[in-house]
Amino acid sequence: MPEQDLSTHNGKQGDLLAAIDLGSNSFHMVVARVSDGELKPIDIMSEKVQLAAGLDAEGLLDEEAQQRGLDCLSRFAQRVSQLPRDSIRIVGTNALREAKNRSHFIARAAEVLDVPIQVIAGREEARLIYLGVAHTLSDDNDRRLVVDIGGGSTEFIIGSRFEPLRLESLHMGCVSYTKRFFSDGSITREAMDRARTAAARELVAIRRDYRRLRWSSTIGSSGTAKALRQACMTLGFGEQITLEGLKAVRDQLIQFGQADKIEIEGIKPARRAVLPSGTAILIAVFEILGITAMDYSDGALREGLLYDMAGRLRHEDVRERTIKALKKRYHVDAGQSRRVETTARFLLDQAADAWSLNSEEYRNMLVWAARTHEIGLTIAHTQFHKHSAYLLQHSDLPGFTNTEQQLLAFLARGHRRKFPKEEYKLLTDDKRHSYRFLCLILRLSVLMHRSRSTAKLPALKFRVKEKSLRLSFPAGWLENHPLTRADLDSEAEYLRAIGFELEID
Amino acid sequence: MPEQDLSTHNGKQGDLLAAIDLGSNSFHMVVARVSDGELKPIDIMSEKVQLAAGLDAEGLLDEEAQQRGLDCLSRFAQRVSQLPRDSIRIVGTNALREAKNRSHFIARAAEVLDVPIQVIAGREEARLIYLGVAHTLSDDNDRRLVVDIGGGSTEFIIGSRFEPLRLESLHMGCVSYTKRFFSDGSITREAMDRARTAAARELVAIRRDYRRLRWSSTIGSSGTAKALRQACMTLGFGEQITLEGLKAVRDQLIQFGQADKIEIEGIKPARRAVLPSGTAILIAVFEILGITAMDYSDGALREGLLYDMAGRLRHEDVRERTIKALKKRYHVDAGQSRRVETTARFLLDQAADAWSLNSEEYRNMLVWAARTHEIGLTIAHTQFHKHSAYLLQHSDLPGFTNTEQQLLAFLARGHRRKFPKEEYKLLTDDKRHSYRFLCLILRLSVLMHRSRSTAKLPALKFRVKEKSLRLSFPAGWLENHPLTRADLDSEAEYLRAIGFELEID
Repeated sequence: MPEQDLSTHNGKQGDLLAAIDLGSNSFHMVVARVSDGELKPIDIMSEKVQLAAGLDAEGLLDEEAQQRGLDCLSRFAQRVSQLPRDSIRIVGTNALREAKNRSHFIARAAEVLDVPIQVIAGREEARLIYLGVAHTLSDDNDRRLVVDIGGGSTEFIIGSRFEPLRLESLHMGCVSYTKRFFSDGSITREAMDRARTAAARELVAIRRDYRRLRWSSTIGSSGTAKALRQACMTLGFGEQITLEGLKAVRDQLIQFGQADKIEIEGIKPARRAVLPSGTAILIAVFEILGITAMDYSDGALREGLLYDMAGRLRHEDVRERTIKALKKRYHVDAGQSRRVETTARFLLDQAADAWSLNSEEYRNMLVWAARTHEIGLTIAHTQFHKHSAYLLQHSDLPGFTNTEQQLLAFLARGHRRKFPKEEYKLLTDDKRHSYRFLCLILRLSVLMHRSRSTAKLPALKFRVKEKSLRLSFPAGWLENHPLTRADLDSEAEYLRAIGFELEID
Repeated sequence: MPEQDLSTHNGKQGDLLAAIDLGSNSFHMVVARVSDGELKPIDIMSEKVQLAAGLDAEGLLDEEAQQRGLDCLSRFAQRVSQLPRDSIRIVGTNALREAKNRSHFIARAAEVLDVPIQVIAGREEARLIYLGVAHTLSDDNDRRLVVDIGGGSTEFIIGSRFEPLRLESLHMGCVSYTKRFFSDGSITREAMDRARTAAARELVAIRRDYRRLRWSSTIGSSGTAKALRQACMTLGFGEQITLEGLKAVRDQLIQFGQADKIEIEGIKPARRAVLPSGTAILIAVFEILGITAMDYSDGALREGLLYDMAGRLRHEDVRERTIKALKKRYHVDAGQSRRVETTARFLLDQAADAWSLNSEEYRNMLVWAARTHEIGLTIAHTQFHKHSAYLLQHSDLPGFTNTEQQLLAFLARGHRRKFPKEEYKLLTDDKRHSYRFLCLILRLSVLMHRSRSTAKLPALKFRVKEKSLRLSFPAGWLENHPLTRADLDSEAEYLRAIGFELEID
C-alpha cells in the first residue's frame, strides 16, 4: 500500500497505530486503523533480515546483521513518519534478548526512528502472540494450543478465548537451529535427527504440564508454520499440517540434499535455508506433545502488539492486572501500599511540571512502584528493597517490557536507604533523568508513611526545581512528629550525597 | 570451674556440648552436660571483647579488635580442647555480619580452635535467643516479648512457650550507639535524646505489627538488661525495669557527665562505657512499644545454641521444618522433589566412600537441596536455578547459618546448565571440594527425572573416583530412552569442562 495512504489520514491520526516486530528471522510492520476496538490493517511489510544469523559465538551481533536491520528499519520508518511517536511500538525478541551489544544496536536504531525499541521476555512474546492469534479465531470456549516457531525461540501457549492459561518460550528457533545443525547447507537424515532430538529435549520440560491441561485444537503461526502448511499441501496432504505430511516434507528435503536446491511449489527462496530446521523442530513438537493436526493462523506477534496498544487506549491495560497479581502473590500490605500510592500521586501532581513528568507513562510507573515496593518482604526483612527489585526485574510480568521491569526494579531498589548509584548508571540515557525524579517522589512518599499509621497526612506543599525539593508542613505538625522530622533530616543527607537539596519547613 | 572438670568426663564425652557466642560486645562460652533433653551448665565464661568497637568507617575489623577476639578465643579453646569437634558450635553475630574482612578473622580463628565460626543472620540470632530465654521461663501459654540489646543489634521476639511468632533484628546496639553518640565519653541530655530518637526511628518499622499482636509479659536478656535492672534497683526501684526507673538512671548518668565517672553499685567498670547508649535504646523500646515493666532472664544466645544442638541430637532439627515451610511457600512440585531426593540419596550411598561424603551433614544438605532446587520457578521459568539460589541465599531460614544458606544456594545454582564456576570460587576452602561432589550428584539426580515421569527408574550403578563418574544402566534401557541418553551426553560435556569424566554404559 502506497505511503500517501497514511498522510491522507492526517485528520484522524490518533486512530492509526503501528507495530514493528524485530524478529530473529524477519522484521515485520503493520499499520492499522482502530475503530470500536477493531483493527483494520492498512499497511503490512515483512523483510527477512535474519538478525539471529549475525550472533557470533560471544553473543555479539555482528556489523552486517546490524546494518541489515537498520536498513530495513529505515524503510519501515518512511511508512510511519507521519504518525505520532506514541502510536508506534517496536519490540525486539530472542535475537535482541541474546545480543550482548543490543544497547549499541538500539542506540543506532533510535537515530533511524525516534521510538525506543522495547526488548520483551519470552513469555511476554508468547502472551502477545496469543493475543494476535486469538483475534483471528472464533470466539468459542475451546481450549487451544498455539505454537509459534520463530528464528530464535518457539512460543507455546495454551489458552481459551483471549485468556492465556500457560505461556512458555523455549530456546529453539529456525535460524539458531540452522546455524547449529545445517550450517553448511547440506540436508542429511543424521542432521535432521540430531535437530529433532535437540528440540525434543527442550520440549520435555513442558510436556507433562501441557499434556495434562489438554486442548482441543492446535494452531501454528508465523512463517515456519505457513511454509510447512504450504509444503504439505504441495506434497498432496490436506489443509492441515499432520505428522505424516511433515515426515514426507522431511524426506523430500533430504532428497534435495542441499538448502539451495530446495524446490517446492509455493515456498519462497528466502525460506529455503531455514526450512530443514523448522521441519525438524515441528516434528519434535508433534511427537512430544502428541499433536495429530495443526491449523495455521496469520495472526502473530505484530497483531498482538496492536491489540495490546488498542487495549491500553481503552484503559484495559494488562499491566494493571499484572501488578494486582504480584501484590497478591507476595502478600503486600494493601493499606500501606494504598497510602504510599496516594501520597505519591499527590506529590507527582505538584512536581510534574517542573520536572517534566507529565506523561501518563511516568504516572503509571510511579503508581505501580508504589504498589509493589514492599514485595521483597516475602523473602526477608533485611535489605528487602533489594529483594523487591530482584523480583520486579526477574518475574514474568505480562504486559511489561524488559526495560519497564528494569525501571520498576530501580524505583523499588531506590525507595529507601542510600540512592542506588550503580543501578542508576545502568539505566539508558533517555530514562535516567526522569526516573531519578520519580525515585525521589517515591522515597518521600514512603518516608511519610513509615509508621504505617492510618492517620491522615497533613496538607503538604511540595515545590521542586532542577536540583532542589521543598516540602512544607502546616505550623506545629513537625514539632509533634519528631520521628518524621528525624527521618526527613536523614533523607536530606541521602539526597545531598547525589547533589539535591531537600528543604523542610 | 577448673579445666580438669572436663577431662574427668572423658568416659561420656558425647554428653558434653559447648556453645561459643562471638558477640559484638562480649564473647561468651558455656559448656553443659545433656541428659534427657535437659542441660546442666558446667562451665561458663564471658569476656568483654568489644569487637564492634573495632569496626572502622569502611566496615573493616581493625587488627587490635581481631587480636582481642583471638586472645579470648584461645582462652576458651583451652577449656574445650578435650571435646569432640562436632560437640562445639561457635557463632558470630552483628559485628561479624558487618565486617567485610570477616573471612580473614575466621581463618585466623580456625588456627586457634579448629571449629568453623558460623555467622548467623539477625533473625536466626533472635530465634536462638528466644530458645535460650524460653527455657528459663515457666511453661505456660502466655504470649511474651523478649528484647535482647546486644553490642551491634537488638533482637525482638514475640513467642509463646518454645514457639517464636515474630522474629526481628534491628540495627542498633550498645557498642555501635556508643560510637555514634557517646564517642568522647561525655554524657549529655542532648546526646541521650539523639540516641533515643535514632533508636525510636528503627523501632517504628516494627511498632504496629508488634503492638497489634500484644503480649502479656516482657523479658530482657543479656548484659544491658541485666545492668539496667541492677541500676534501677540501686536507685530504689523494684526488681522490674520500668520507664520511671530508666529515666532516673538516665538522669543519674547525665549527672555523672562522663562514662569513666559512672559509679552505680553493682555495675562493673567494664559496663560503664556502653551504659548510656543502652539506657537510651531501652527507653526508646519502652516508649515505642508501650512497655510498662520488664523482667530479666539470664537465658541468652549461648543457651539457645545449646538447646538447638541438643535438639539436633534428638533429631528435632528445626532446619527440617524450615525446608518444609519453604517448599510450601514456593509451591514446589512435591512428587518431583521426592523423586529427585530418592535418587540423590541412592547415588550418595554409592559415592559416599570414594568421595568422603559420609557425614550426616552432607546427606542433610544434599537432601534439602533436592527438596528446594525448584523454588525459583515461582519467580520465572527462565534461569530458574538462579532464582532458586537467590531465594535460598536471602530468605530467612530458621536454623541455617549464613554459610549453610550459601552452600544450599550453590547446589541449587549448579543443578542444571553450566557448572557455576564463579559461585564455586566463593565457597570456603574446606567446603569447596565436597560441595562440588554433592552438586554432581544433584545434577545427575535431576537429569534422571527431567521428564517428571512417575515411572520407576531402572536399577542404576554409580561408581566414582576422584575425577570420574560411571553410571551403568541395565541393557537396553538407554536405547529405549534416547532423550535421557542425549541429556547424559550433554552432561558429559558440561562435566568435561570442569575436568570430570562421565562414563555411561
